[in-house]
Amino acid sequence: MSPYFRTAAPHVAATKLACVMVGLPARGKTYVARKIARYLAWLGHHSRIFNVGNYRRVAVGAVQPHDFFDPTNPAYAEKRKEVADKALEDMLSWFGKAGDAPATGAVLTKDGPMTPVTSRPRSDSLSVVGAGTGGPGWVAVYDATNSTAERRQGIYEECLRNGVDIMFIESICDNDDIILANIKEVKLSSPDYVGMDPEKAVEDFSRRIQHYQMGYQTLDPSECSGNIPFVKVINVGDQVIVNKVKGYLQSRIVYFLMNLNITPKSFFFTRHGESMYNVQGKIGGDADLSPQGMRFAQRLPGLLADKLPKETKLTVWTSTLKRTMQTASHLEFPQLQWKQLDELDSGVCDELTYEEIAERYPNDFSERDLDKFNYRYHGGESYRDLVQRLEPVIMELERHHERDHAILIVGHQAVLRAIYAYFLNYSLDELPYVKIPLHTVVKLTPKAYGCAEERYEIDIPAVDTHRGMPHPALDAKSK
Amino acid sequence: MSPYFRTAAPHVAATKLACVMVGLPARGKTYVARKIARYLAWLGHHSRIFNVGNYRRVAVGAVQPHDFFDPTNPAYAEKRKEVADKALEDMLSWFGKAGDAPATGAVLTKDGPMTPVTSRPRSDSLSVVGAGTGGPGWVAVYDATNSTAERRQGIYEECLRNGVDIMFIESICDNDDIILANIKEVKLSSPDYVGMDPEKAVEDFSRRIQHYQMGYQTLDPSECSGNIPFVKVINVGDQVIVNKVKGYLQSRIVYFLMNLNITPKSFFFTRHGESMYNVQGKIGGDADLSPQGMRFAQRLPGLLADKLPKETKLTVWTSTLKRTMQTASHLEFPQLQWKQLDELDSGVCDELTYEEIAERYPNDFSERDLDKFNYRYHGGESYRDLVQRLEPVIMELERHHERDHAILIVGHQAVLRAIYAYFLNYSLDELPYVKIPLHTVVKLTPKAYGCAEERYEIDIPAVDTHRGMPHPALDAKSK
Repeated sequence: MSPYFRTAAPHVAATKLACVMVGLPARGKTYVARKIARYLAWLGHHSRIFNVGNYRRVAVGAVQPHDFFDPTNPAYAEKRKEVADKALEDMLSWFGKAGDAPATGAVLTKDGPMTPVTSRPRSDSLSVVGAGTGGPGWVAVYDATNSTAERRQGIYEECLRNGVDIMFIESICDNDDIILANIKEVKLSSPDYVGMDPEKAVEDFSRRIQHYQMGYQTLDPSECSGNIPFVKVINVGDQVIVNKVKGYLQSRIVYFLMNLNITPKSFFFTRHGESMYNVQGKIGGDADLSPQGMRFAQRLPGLLADKLPKETKLTVWTSTLKRTMQTASHLEFPQLQWKQLDELDSGVCDELTYEEIAERYPNDFSERDLDKFNYRYHGGESYRDLVQRLEPVIMELERHHERDHAILIVGHQAVLRAIYAYFLNYSLDELPYVKIPLHTVVKLTPKAYGCAEERYEIDIPAVDTHRGMPHPALDAKSK
Repeated sequence: MSPYFRTAAPHVAATKLACVMVGLPARGKTYVARKIARYLAWLGHHSRIFNVGNYRRVAVGAVQPHDFFDPTNPAYAEKRKEVADKALEDMLSWFGKAGDAPATGAVLTKDGPMTPVTSRPRSDSLSVVGAGTGGPGWVAVYDATNSTAERRQGIYEECLRNGVDIMFIESICDNDDIILANIKEVKLSSPDYVGMDPEKAVEDFSRRIQHYQMGYQTLDPSECSGNIPFVKVINVGDQVIVNKVKGYLQSRIVYFLMNLNITPKSFFFTRHGESMYNVQGKIGGDADLSPQGMRFAQRLPGLLADKLPKETKLTVWTSTLKRTMQTASHLEFPQLQWKQLDELDSGVCDELTYEEIAERYPNDFSERDLDKFNYRYHGGESYRDLVQRLEPVIMELERHHERDHAILIVGHQAVLRAIYAYFLNYSLDELPYVKIPLHTVVKLTPKAYGCAEERYEIDIPAVDTHRGMPHPALDAKSK
C-alpha cells in the first residue's frame, strides 16, 4: 500500500454533469441543448437530453391551450411540476448507470479501486482520451424553463445529493425579431400546434410566453447559497456571463457556447481528386493525384462558379498532404493548410493495400472490423483519436459567423466522415462507414434542428475506396 | 480573374489585436498580461507587452511617492497621461510592422494579393497553422490601469483608426486578502519600492490604490457606442463576463483566462526510462525499456515517496507509447494516457538512427539544423506542429486547481521540451534544444512571475540523446 492519499482525482474520475437549461419559451433552449449534446456525443461522451416538453406531451397530450401554462391555475401548475419532476427523476437514474458502468481503463469512479494501466492501449482504446478528461463523461441536458430560483434550488439539491455536478445555462433574448423568427421556424412545426392556423399558433405561443414571464427570475449569483455555477448567454452570445464554473467538461461547454452563433451559413467539402495510391489500392502516404484526379481538380473551379452564390466569399482549407493541395491548386481563393485535416494516420499500415494489411496483420484486420471507431493502427490513430484532433476544426466551423462567406474543405475520407457525422448526427458506430465518394462536392447547411445537404458529382470516373461494414444491416444505413 | 468577390477573410488575414488591461493597482493585471503574452508567443504568435509602469519609471524615475498618482494634481496627471500615450504610440507603431512583414504562405494582409498555396508545406512550414488562424497573429497587451471610460474611448478610437482589433480585459477583485497578498508578493519587490521599509511600502501602495479608486469606472457595455468588446474577470475567475467578443484569437484568450487560476501547485515530469531504441541510437518507434530503463522505473516510486509532500495526491499522465507506460508501471497512482503526449512524429525517419537519416536524407538533415523548430519530418511533424498538439495539455495544467494534488507527466524528449519551454519562457528557437536528460525527474512550481525548478537525478546510467545546436553560443544557453 502506498503511503499517499490514494483516490481518483475528479478530473480522472468520470464526470457526471447536469446542464440545466433556464429561459423563457422560444429563447433557443432546445437548440442549445441539442448542440451541446451533439458536440459531447461526437467527442465520445455519454450525453442525453431530458426534455420536459416531451414528458408533458406524453403525460397530458401535445395539444394544450396556453391556459395550461397559466401559473395562477393550481391544478395545471401541479401537473406541470409532476412532469418536470418525472424528467428530473429519469435523469438522475440515468446518471445512476454511470456508477454501474465503471469508466474504462485507467479511469476510476470516485470510490473504485485503482487499475494501473500497463497493457498496450491498442487493445483498450477507450482508456485513451484526447483531451484531459479521464475517459468519457456523463452529461445530461435538462431542457425546461426552470424559471424560478426556488425550482432551481430544488434541482441543485437533488443533483448534489446524487453526486452529480450541475451547471445552469440560461438563454436570454430581448430582441423581438429573433424571438419571432424562432417561434415561426421552430415552434409552429412542434407537435403542440399540429394542424393549427399559424397566426393563431403564434398568438397562443406568445400568451404562453407571457404566462412564464409573470414569475420569471433570471439567474443570480446569490442563488444556491452563492455557489451557483452558471452560464448566461444574452442575445445569442452578444454577452456571456460565466459564474463559478469549474471542471474540464464545464469549461469546454462554455467555450463551445461562446463560439455558437446563428448566422446562416453553408460550407462545402470534397475529398482530394483520385490519387495514385487510390488507383493502386494503397492507404495513407502522400501520393500525387492520378490523371483522373487532376482532371477533377481542373473541373472544381467551374463547379464552384456554378454553385456558389454570387458575391459569396470563399476560403479553402486543405490538409498538408499533396493530394489535397493539388486538388485545390486551380482555385483562386485564399487557402489555408491545416495539419489537423491530414488523413487518419495508419501507422505501420501506411502505404499498404488492404490485402497486404490482411496478410501481414491478420488479427489486427479483423479486430478493426469488430470496432472500427476504437481500433487504433499500430503506431497510428483510431477514429476516436481523429475526432479529438478534429475538434478545433468543428469549433472553427461553428464559430465562423460571416454572412456570405463560405468555406470549402478539401480533405480525406476518414476526416470528412468525422466532420459529416458531427453535422448529420451519425452515431460513433456509423461514423467510420459514412460514404464520402471521390469526385463529389458536398454542401452542408446547418439549420436550427438538423442540417440540409446537397451533393454535386463531377462525372470523372474514380475508384471506389469505401469498405462497407461487416454487418450489412448497419451498412445499409450509411449512405 | 475569378468571378467571385476576392479578398482575404478576416480569419485568414493576420490578426492585429490589442488587449487593453483595465483595473486598479494590485489586481493582477501584469500577471494576466504576462500569461497571455507567453501563451500566445508559445503558440507561435507575435506578442508583446507595453507596460505603462515601465514607461513611467523611465520617464520620471522609479521612486515616486503616492502623490504622483493623485488625480487632483494636474501637473502629475499630465505627466502620467504623457507616458501612457507614449506606450500607446509605441504599440501602434509595433503593429505597423505587421503590415510590413506580410503573413506567411497562404496568408494575406487585408489588401494584399492572394498567394495560392501549391508548394510542399515542408519547405514553408510557417504557412501551416494548427488551429484555424491563417498564420501568426500580432497581439499586444497594453498594461495600464485605463481606469476611466474616457481614456478607454480614446484608446478604442486610436486602435480603430490603425486597423487594430481591440479587446479590454478588466481584473476586478474585492477580496482584501488576495489584494494584500498580491501587494506583498509582487509590488514590494518592484523597482518603485527598492530599499523602502515593507510596512511603509504597503502603506504608500495602498494610498496609490486610493488615488485610482477615486475616479475608477468599471467597464460598461454602453461604452464605445455600445460596441465595446471586453472580458471582465472578477475575483480571479469566480465570475467572468464576456461582452461582444468575436474573433478566433479573442475567443482563445477568453478561454485561457477562464482556465487561469492562482492556486499554488507543482507538477513533476520525467522522460520514460532508457529504451532499447535509445541504446541503439534510433529515434521514434515504440520500443520497450532497456534493462537500465526498467531499473529507473523501479526506483521512481521511491523518489516520489521522498519528494512528494505527505497527503499530496498524484495523478500520472503517460503517452500511449509502451516506454512511458512501462516507466509508470510501478506507480500506484491513478494514471491517464494522453495521445497528445506521444513523441514528435518523425515520419519517414521513424526508427532510424541519426546517422541513417544523415545518409538517406542529407538535405533534410541540414535543413533541420537550420531551423529545427519549423522543420517538419516528411510524413511527420515539426516542433511547431507539436506545440499546437500540446496546447490542450498546457491548458489542462493551467486549469488544474486543486490544492495538494500534483501531476506527474511521464513523457518524451521533444514533448517535455515544449512543455518546459512554456513554463520557463524559452523562445521558440531555443525550445528544440532544451536539455531534458533521461533518468531525471523535474519539478516545476509556477510563481506569479516565473517558475521555480528542481531536478532530481536517479543514479542509473543512461545514454545521452541530446543533440546540441549547430550554433554553440546558443546551445550554451540551453541547460
